[in-house]
Amino acid sequence: KGDAAAGELKAMMCVACHGATGKVSVPMYPNLAGQNEAYLEHSLKAYKKGERSGGQAEVMKAYVSGLSNEDISNLAAYYASMKP
Amino acid sequence: KGDAAAGELKAMMCVACHGATGKVSVPMYPNLAGQNEAYLEHSLKAYKKGERSGGQAEVMKAYVSGLSNEDISNLAAYYASMKP
Repeated sequence: KGDAAAGELKAMMCVACHGATGKVSVPMYPNLAGQNEAYLEHSLKAYKKGERSGGQAEVMKAYVSGLSNEDISNLAAYYASMKP
Repeated sequence: KGDAAAGELKAMMCVACHGATGKVSVPMYPNLAGQNEAYLEHSLKAYKKGERSGGQAEVMKAYVSGLSNEDISNLAAYYASMKP
């Protein structure tokens, strides 16, 4: 299980698109608040492995490429812990 | 903008994995309730175009391949209208 507090620190770079509360005003991007932790981890890894293309996939891949698996599980825990 | 009522009819096939209320007990799958409509539409089309692989992407592609763009926007409207 990830560490939500550590995830919060890592999330500084996510806020621009995903919002400070994990809910976005740009409908093209997903709300992350309260999403399932395992799914968030899966998606981040999918971007990292290049399993997603189109839309903002390349942007996400750039952000995620610098993250360790531990960062990824912490970020997943952080957003999953937010109230949807 | 999609028609949420028409989307509800189409969503019968989604309930098995995404739950009757758009919230799942299987943490590997995403909660859909209250997700952004344009993002949901984008994701469904990404599965349809084969822009996503790994995980359940092939399962999703099978479900989505039979949907028209209108079905897709109606499904997106339906899940976006649900309370997260």
